Amino acid sequence: MAGFILAQENTRRINNDDDIFILNTKAKEMAARLGSENIANAAIGTLIDDHGKLVVLSSVEQTLRSLSIEDFAEYAPIDGLASFQSAAIAAVFEEQLPDCPIAAVATPGGTGALHNVIQNYSRRGDIILTSDWHWGPYRTIAEELERKLETYPMFDEDNRFDIKSFSDKVHELLKRQDRLVLLLNTPAHNPTGYSLNNNDWDAVLDVLKNEAADPNKSIALLIDVAYIDFADDPATSRFFLPKLTGLPQNILPLIAFSMSKSFMLYGMRTGAIIALSPNKDIIDEFRKVMIFTNRGTWSNGTRAGMVVLSRIYADPELLARTKKERIPAMRLLADRGKTFIKAAADADLAIYPYNAGFFAVVHTNNPTWVSEQLQQDGIFTVPLDNRGLRISLASASEHWCRIIPAKIAALTNR
Amino acid sequence: MAGFILAQENTRRINNDDDIFILNTKAKEMAARLGSENIANAAIGTLIDDHGKLVVLSSVEQTLRSLSIEDFAEYAPIDGLASFQSAAIAAVFEEQLPDCPIAAVATPGGTGALHNVIQNYSRRGDIILTSDWHWGPYRTIAEELERKLETYPMFDEDNRFDIKSFSDKVHELLKRQDRLVLLLNTPAHNPTGYSLNNNDWDAVLDVLKNEAADPNKSIALLIDVAYIDFADDPATSRFFLPKLTGLPQNILPLIAFSMSKSFMLYGMRTGAIIALSPNKDIIDEFRKVMIFTNRGTWSNGTRAGMVVLSRIYADPELLARTKKERIPAMRLLADRGKTFIKAAADADLAIYPYNAGFFAVVHTNNPTWVSEQLQQDGIFTVPLDNRGLRISLASASEHWCRIIPAKIAALTNR
Repeated sequence: MAGFILAQENTRRINNDDDIFILNTKAKEMAARLGSENIANAAIGTLIDDHGKLVVLSSVEQTLRSLSIEDFAEYAPIDGLASFQSAAIAAVFEEQLPDCPIAAVATPGGTGALHNVIQNYSRRGDIILTSDWHWGPYRTIAEELERKLETYPMFDEDNRFDIKSFSDKVHELLKRQDRLVLLLNTPAHNPTGYSLNNNDWDAVLDVLKNEAADPNKSIALLIDVAYIDFADDPATSRFFLPKLTGLPQNILPLIAFSMSKSFMLYGMRTGAIIALSPNKDIIDEFRKVMIFTNRGTWSNGTRAGMVVLSRIYADPELLARTKKERIPAMRLLADRGKTFIKAAADADLAIYPYNAGFFAVVHTNNPTWVSEQLQQDGIFTVPLDNRGLRISLASASEHWCRIIPAKIAALTNR
Repeated sequence: MAGFILAQENTRRINNDDDIFILNTKAKEMAARLGSENIANAAIGTLIDDHGKLVVLSSVEQTLRSLSIEDFAEYAPIDGLASFQSAAIAAVFEEQLPDCPIAAVATPGGTGALHNVIQNYSRRGDIILTSDWHWGPYRTIAEELERKLETYPMFDEDNRFDIKSFSDKVHELLKRQDRLVLLLNTPAHNPTGYSLNNNDWDAVLDVLKNEAADPNKSIALLIDVAYIDFADDPATSRFFLPKLTGLPQNILPLIAFSMSKSFMLYGMRTGAIIALSPNKDIIDEFRKVMIFTNRGTWSNGTRAGMVVLSRIYADPELLARTKKERIPAMRLLADRGKTFIKAAADADLAIYPYNAGFFAVVHTNNPTWVSEQLQQDGIFTVPLDNRGLRISLASASEHWCRIIPAKIAALTNR
């Protein structure tokens, strides 16, 4: 407990203020001083257009502005409005609603959803598993709950999903403990932009089914789909969802849904955790534990965000408009992705496999130094794990996506 | 782990859906069937006018409706907007800002604030202390974090704050553990409506200072002031705040602030945890642990609610208007309180000491049965702990406040 006077560290390694938010503040200050056109804030995960403005969907804004004051002011139920629960399920599954017991419980964004799963499907001291490349807060969430995060190498030498390492690690952990929360972030993985393909998914599920043959073992398969609507075609990006039905009941698929990216409404903290199972009792206990955790952690969620999603899914025209408005946003991002990949190839800069999404990762062994050097050129990026540099394509303009790879290459390839 | 298939109980006693929210749903259904004038929903903690409408402050609504879409859509920083942090401190302390290191960190409502304090100022298995009469979720929050809630009798035989029991219990617990999170809900305590008076406060602080003479002991004095703006005069209700400065540094005063009641904006989940200390290092570590917990639990808070409070406190005229609009809301509640107390006296019905606030508690040994009988008359109340019945004066009209005591007396005094 070195350094703490009254607070209890409680097995966590409590670090300083969140780096990404600090970088963002620094970038904003520099933009105010030097002009925003001279700054590339490629550090934060919100979609910004090429004029530096936050991208919003006008259908979402209009719906939000049409709410009554009661929609803002009244409490939502602990588990969320029923209309929101079904809208969240519809938003994830679209036309392929699973034919099995399913439930959604409201949470503050995707973070709240992940928190609730780890809290309820593991015990203090358990190992939570994800890939070596992962969104930093996964570790914070696990540690906050007195769990530990362990990882498997995400890519093999040929830059393919490393199913062998995955399989070995799952097997090792299920020898050490009877339960496993496995956290997959796909499609359009943060930070690499990789999407598990059909073969990856089949292989992953084979590994899990193999482990689940032992009835004493159970696996919470937690899928963070924060970027599902920015993984190219929203229909094909959902190809893996039907694979989640019909699994043995000791594999529980859980999906973390968030309005942050899909509806460009980050600050309303509206998300949900969704579970599906062949066994209705498992879904009933899922609801029960999620409601208890909600009540004992933040009570209830932001009602207005829930009403917005409910309205959109209750009105086919409004839904169609929302999806249509998402297309240029998605295209903006996809174009930046293409530009960045091409510029990286031209500059002979190695990046991890990028399919789609808000971020890409550049190989480098000294990312902190590179990141600091780039800041002198007005480019803000996030150093990761001493092995890579995360570039937010969501917040860097097309212009900067063309320029940044060569700037990095000049620093790293020498 | 009886009854659970995949979920982990993790030392919690996970009960069913939240009773109060279920009661509320039932009351709404009955109101739709029989007409709302025939139903008294005295179960829920939102202020409803005598025509059944949620009370909102038009200054708050206007401010909310004036926000830009970015104010809704963008992420807030993990610790909340800086302008919100100072506004939250101003909202609690008003004109008596303490002359010592102080900080506020945004949380989802008061619940989030309580959660964060228990998580960071106690350890798994620790005892958290509050009074026997308390808001039910205090126990849920403690259990969710694998702590235990213990209580002292709040009132002595003369219906005064039971300082002897309080003192004994604090002493007993600080013999069993070196740390203590002590949760006080005052003024206008939920559920009784009691406000600690000047003598109570001095006696409480004497007890704590006495314990804190041992430098190995530390006390987190967590004060839930959810109802501070509905405890009669908002200036006098804050009389105890100056007592919190100049305490020994191993007593850490922490204040849970929420916009839910004071700004009638329950569903926006905007609150804060505030700490003050003579020692700046203690405030720095407070910020550090609170930011870590925020990041690992719900990430960031509802930005729009934070902007509303920031705007109100940046504009003296708007602030004055907000406070002025609060007066009739407060008076509505105070009048109901007077009516209820008089009707209880007339019906010879014993209630616990009520000073102000959203709730009152009637003595009864079989509250569940009484509550069920009352439902047949369209009256919804919350049975507590097999010893009392909580009546929400906030949601029962003046008319019902006049009627309910005799109805209860007819069931209990026979």
